[in-house]
Amino acid sequence: MMDRGRLEAFSDGVFAVAITLLALNLAVAGPGRDHHTLLYQLGHQWPAYVAYLVSFFTIGVIWVNHHALFAQVARVDRPLLFLNLLLLLFVVAIPFATSTVSDYLLVGGQDAHVAGALYAAVMEGMGLSFSLIFIHIAGHGLMTVPMTPEESRAATLRFGVGALVYLVAFGAAFISATLVLAIAGLITTYYIFRQTPGDAGPETSE
Amino acid sequence: MMDRGRLEAFSDGVFAVAITLLALNLAVAGPGRDHHTLLYQLGHQWPAYVAYLVSFFTIGVIWVNHHALFAQVARVDRPLLFLNLLLLLFVVAIPFATSTVSDYLLVGGQDAHVAGALYAAVMEGMGLSFSLIFIHIAGHGLMTVPMTPEESRAATLRFGVGALVYLVAFGAAFISATLVLAIAGLITTYYIFRQTPGDAGPETSE
Amino acid sequence: MMDRGRLEAFSDGVFAVAITLLALNLAVAGPGRDHHTLLYQLGHQWPAYVAYLVSFFTIGVIWVNHHALFAQVARVDRPLLFLNLLLLLFVVAIPFATSTVSDYLLVGGQDAHVAGALYAAVMEGMGLSFSLIFIHIAGHGLMTVPMTPEESRAATLRFGVGALVYLVAFGAAFISATLVLAIAGLITTYYIFRQTPGDAGPETSE
Amino acid sequence: MMDRGRLEAFSDGVFAVAITLLALNLAVAGPGRDHHTLLYQLGHQWPAYVAYLVSFFTIGVIWVNHHALFAQVARVDRPLLFLNLLLLLFVVAIPFATSTVSDYLLVGGQDAHVAGALYAAVMEGMGLSFSLIFIHIAGHGLMTVPMTPEESRAATLRFGVGALVYLVAFGAAFISATLVLAIAGLITTYYIFRQTPGDAGPETSE
Repeated sequence: MMDRGRLEAFSDGVFAVAITLLALNLAVAGPGRDHHTLLYQLGHQWPAYVAYLVSFFTIGVIWVNHHALFAQVARVDRPLLFLNLLLLLFVVAIPFATSTVSDYLLVGGQDAHVAGALYAAVMEGMGLSFSLIFIHIAGHGLMTVPMTPEESRAATLRFGVGALVYLVAFGAAFISATLVLAIAGLITTYYIFRQTPGDAGPETSE
Repeated sequence: MMDRGRLEAFSDGVFAVAITLLALNLAVAGPGRDHHTLLYQLGHQWPAYVAYLVSFFTIGVIWVNHHALFAQVARVDRPLLFLNLLLLLFVVAIPFATSTVSDYLLVGGQDAHVAGALYAAVMEGMGLSFSLIFIHIAGHGLMTVPMTPEESRAATLRFGVGALVYLVAFGAAFISATLVLAIAGLITTYYIFRQTPGDAGPETSE
Repeated sequence: MMDRGRLEAFSDGVFAVAITLLALNLAVAGPGRDHHTLLYQLGHQWPAYVAYLVSFFTIGVIWVNHHALFAQVARVDRPLLFLNLLLLLFVVAIPFATSTVSDYLLVGGQDAHVAGALYAAVMEGMGLSFSLIFIHIAGHGLMTVPMTPEESRAATLRFGVGALVYLVAFGAAFISATLVLAIAGLITTYYIFRQTPGDAGPETSE
Repeated sequence: MMDRGRLEAFSDGVFAVAITLLALNLAVAGPGRDHHTLLYQLGHQWPAYVAYLVSFFTIGVIWVNHHALFAQVARVDRPLLFLNLLLLLFVVAIPFATSTVSDYLLVGGQDAHVAGALYAAVMEGMGLSFSLIFIHIAGHGLMTVPMTPEESRAATLRFGVGALVYLVAFGAAFISATLVLAIAGLITTYYIFRQTPGDAGPETSE
């Protein structure tokens, strides 16, 4: 019903706006509204930089994986449209989760735990949505070339590992919000450097 | 005069920005600016989550229906350009209506009623604009394949039902703002699950 | 050097974000932060609605005219890229000018005059940039089909009338900011309803 | 793995949002929240206009150069995707650096120096990322037509000069933040008016 191009264009628009809104959280108080020096303020908000870095590359990785997956999709059915909207629902919430965790990280106590859990929960929702999209595409024959059982297993594992690790991060929130960011940063780094066979293929063949 | 592609690209850009701005309303107060715990704040702002969900999928449905309709359009005339801008005028106001209804829902009294009425009015404006777009396209022979009288009746009913239900929601605002959100959520759910013949056709034939 | 498509896509992105940011100015104060009822607040900020309407359709008209003009452009040279950026510089400032004029309209006195003059100045900058773009395109043979002298005169008049009327609006700011909005609304309405020969041609021939 | 088109579309989206968010910093305080007249406020925030101008055209130049470079790219590999994300990480931070330097410029003292250094550092990060992208593209044979050694030297110099000048600007921050903006404005002006052979070629041949 809908061509892949417009689904990708709309999703890219949402990714682009969400990734840019992340930086709104870097803002410092203007002069006179805070008794601290600018240097103190900038230094004191290091959690905002760390959270910005992690969330920026997380959205970046979602964008890369989103494209890699949809490049294999031959047709888009109505459930896929709405599963994709479900994914975007969580992507759009990432700037909110990011600013909350960076605001409350240094506060410590229950507030920091809750902020970390919120961050992990949004990421978990995003990861699960991505898995649902993959399961739907693979299970309803929407791909140009159907996957072999091995490819399917490898892809399920690949997309599933994120959803699993974010669940671990959710549990880790009750120990430390910093740990949540560290785990999220690790899983993003893993996705950045993991050269999948499917990715490498077309490049070397060219 | 204008090719369909650029109208769709611009509209998709507006949809993408509006849907992402919805999440700005999820923000909680930073530490120290509020005596409540983060958990209390997050729990206390449940209307913001409900309103976010309803508005997010409403814009999502508009996007899906917008594409389904314009995919049948052969040429874009000047009035269609401006009717489309009228639709976007209301889409762009959805984040404002969403944050207002979620801010005032728990306040109750006249303020909550007014906020609910505002939300329903913006949705009504959006629904009416969509109907005007359809009437213009069908009435001025802008479609690739003209609709049969039955198809036309079905589509008029389909697009018109939204405008009618939002009118009911407007009236319901004077009973309860929560009822407005419930009705808006129902109509969006209806559009998500209603598999139209036109949608299913091309998919099964492929 | 740059293909027209990417210039249009980038410009459309800027138009889409700017037009959506306009609605941020509709926000009302949350409950408790203002002693007035929501109804009073909504009624009291009517200048925000008027300014929103005028600015929304102004950006819409710029978008429509931008497309109509660039559809005739065969190639994009470097000066055209930067003249287009100059246009976008003013388009991006429209939400700022809009919120300023709607905030200060009811205050009256010098502040309202200054806000009106600011609004007219931003529109004037936009109008002049558009004229410069047209002059450059027509004068450097960048069009697919060069204009006849009559077409060129008509187009110069058409694009120039905006720049002239915004100058009048600037002067009118010293009488009343409301008058500025009224003039801006009139010129936008003129552009919406003025069916140019170039626009009508391809439509009727189809 | 990823086609160039989607990388460009996503990057253009980020450029468009970032360039539009710059204008949020032009906002003045509403009436009643400030004892100064609007004219005083507008006049007093001249650093915001200068910073807006410099940053707007800097992002504009990055966009132009980004396109000129990627127009020569035959295929996109995974490292290029992430180097491009690194560039966008700094582009997205430009509105933050811009509002900080314009807020603190007139304050003087250490705060102004720090704000200037922050602005220069973000620009340096952007410039270095751009250089890394070029080095990767040229060094891994990703271009449609490989550069001759002379072309490669000229391009390295061209992209490298920015990274070098922003380093000088960083040092200049310890003298004056105004000097930082002046240097950044100069380098952007240089990129606007420098007609590269590669740019001119296709134009004159057409």
